[in-house]
Amino acid sequence: MKTHYLDNSATTRVSDAAAEKALDMMKENYGNPSSLHKMGVRAELCVEEAREAIADALSAKAKNIVFTSGGTEANNTVLFGAAEALKRRGNRIIVSAVEHSSVYESAKRLSQLGYDVQYAPVGKDGVIDPNALEQLLTDKTILVSVMAVNNETGSVQPTELLAKHIKRRCPDAVFHVDAVQAFCKIPLKPVRWGVDFMTVSAHKIHGPKGVGAIFSRDGARLVPLLYGGEQQKKIRPGTESAPLIAAFGEAVNEADISANLTYIRELNAYAVEKLEAIKGVTFNSPEAALPYIINISVEGIKSETMLHHLEQNGVYVSSSSACAKGKRSYVLAAMGLSDDRIDSSVRISFSKHSTKEDIDALVDGIVSGIATLQRK
Amino acid sequence: MKTHYLDNSATTRVSDAAAEKALDMMKENYGNPSSLHKMGVRAELCVEEAREAIADALSAKAKNIVFTSGGTEANNTVLFGAAEALKRRGNRIIVSAVEHSSVYESAKRLSQLGYDVQYAPVGKDGVIDPNALEQLLTDKTILVSVMAVNNETGSVQPTELLAKHIKRRCPDAVFHVDAVQAFCKIPLKPVRWGVDFMTVSAHKIHGPKGVGAIFSRDGARLVPLLYGGEQQKKIRPGTESAPLIAAFGEAVNEADISANLTYIRELNAYAVEKLEAIKGVTFNSPEAALPYIINISVEGIKSETMLHHLEQNGVYVSSSSACAKGKRSYVLAAMGLSDDRIDSSVRISFSKHSTKEDIDALVDGIVSGIATLQRK
Repeated sequence: MKTHYLDNSATTRVSDAAAEKALDMMKENYGNPSSLHKMGVRAELCVEEAREAIADALSAKAKNIVFTSGGTEANNTVLFGAAEALKRRGNRIIVSAVEHSSVYESAKRLSQLGYDVQYAPVGKDGVIDPNALEQLLTDKTILVSVMAVNNETGSVQPTELLAKHIKRRCPDAVFHVDAVQAFCKIPLKPVRWGVDFMTVSAHKIHGPKGVGAIFSRDGARLVPLLYGGEQQKKIRPGTESAPLIAAFGEAVNEADISANLTYIRELNAYAVEKLEAIKGVTFNSPEAALPYIINISVEGIKSETMLHHLEQNGVYVSSSSACAKGKRSYVLAAMGLSDDRIDSSVRISFSKHSTKEDIDALVDGIVSGIATLQRK
Repeated sequence: MKTHYLDNSATTRVSDAAAEKALDMMKENYGNPSSLHKMGVRAELCVEEAREAIADALSAKAKNIVFTSGGTEANNTVLFGAAEALKRRGNRIIVSAVEHSSVYESAKRLSQLGYDVQYAPVGKDGVIDPNALEQLLTDKTILVSVMAVNNETGSVQPTELLAKHIKRRCPDAVFHVDAVQAFCKIPLKPVRWGVDFMTVSAHKIHGPKGVGAIFSRDGARLVPLLYGGEQQKKIRPGTESAPLIAAFGEAVNEADISANLTYIRELNAYAVEKLEAIKGVTFNSPEAALPYIINISVEGIKSETMLHHLEQNGVYVSSSSACAKGKRSYVLAAMGLSDDRIDSSVRISFSKHSTKEDIDALVDGIVSGIATLQRK
């Protein structure tokens, strides 16, 4: 049976070039990047090339990029590291109500640790109202964390505008943007926008699982989460995973934001047209969402039931986020959706490898699912 | 020029089988292990197979293994996580004076955070005297962390015996063993020995950089270092790096402790005999060291000078640990070595791929180094 993989916001297939690069680093260029001899220096060069690639993609400098083991570690490092670094200045931390669990749960933990954590609400479209955020900003605000693109709905946050509000009202607060779902999909300019920290990840863009990075603005302080060797200026010690980092660089170099976006927009329009024609399907993603993600609900059919029905046809989608493993989505709840609609939500997510044929298979599967599953 | 890689305690070449496994996970079996559909389940199966392999190698159960991004994260997770979990019971933490930087620097940080951190001294052989450790144990002791094998000298710590002392004097304290340099090189039985936490890593045993694991005894509590999704019972959230984890499992399955040890012992004896014959060479590793590591000093020649001389001949060794990037070794200092001897130390470290030819090239290099470099 043909595979129709439409779960690219959960993870993507690693590109041939990225995978081959990792393989070469494992078998040939296997030195420890910290070793002082040539074998180390050769590996270090590849790490630094990748750092340049990630920096370039963010219109930033390589010295402002720190590699981590992925988005979760990157988000934790920024939230806990900035909170600790700035705790003498104040204790209010603001995150949006629709953050990825690695920000949301970190914020909850910071609340347990005594910080005054506030959640910025979102509208029906999943987008933060800048005025609502502004009302939460106080002189005691030290950190604001907002994602660039929501992982369940594709809702795009106005991070550039939010940065302006935050910097005007709280010039000493730091602004973190979790850009895991946005990186290499839309242009990101943290330096120009006034963003202090931005986190990105490889495995959503055809790089391998297990590597991410933090952009830190010049002078932005983080108390490290990990302690150890001299690697990465001690902000993130530990032997760098040179194979994954080099593969991440390859994946970034291959990403053509504009060409991909044009293609995905066309694919999205095709899918929306087909899905709109199905009775019982409602859209949870707003119209202005990043076209890589379409979140829908199918009336009367639980997400998991639909998911398993679709996989019988080789179609792979997701019920909310992969990380939640079936728990009810707080993201859709924050958008004011009913429990029924949340419990029947399905996330379809594209990559440049997705095709109209994949969408046809998806649509056929949803139609047959409605015909057979709703009756039971 | 032929490569004579004798820096296997810094890192190793990834085995063909492990690298191919990673490649397959990146390109074919690329689902997110947390995804509920078959693509996710297939990837998850490989993660769980690897967990079984690591557990088996420690005579433990898979449910007691948590994957991390490497030894540094694993050691940090245990030190900070156990300290936080047990802080109501006491505040004394004991580590040895020769721990890897990821334990040593974590301990220093814990000291800054208000814990009473004590360093257990070692003898000239780099081994902790159990009585010296016992004198540091108090009713307030909550955590003791001792490495199984030292990364610079190969000194083997009597962890089984230490566990007995600790459990007798402080039954409520937890005992952590950093086994990164020991794993798959000597038998490790944390459950039988009474060890609460043990950390291991892939890239020292022909697995890839970027993955490690923690063994946690049943009921041993850790406050997580990272917050996020539901992965790994929330002890270590974040999308599992299925390619690296599966490759780690392959590397563990390939490791034949006893056959390798027999071979390395023979190689070590050959090297020692040749090195002993060179005037100006003294041994820093004790006789009872793990034969995978030989630490020597070459009179009058700085470590880095010798290292770069050797690499001209294709011989790759290390000056103390790779992570230290040339800083003076506190490990050798704790053994009472003079600054001159520390500054001229060279670490030679073997793997099953090392040969007598590699040792001959090393010995030739040291001899020619002494002849040419000492004169300058």
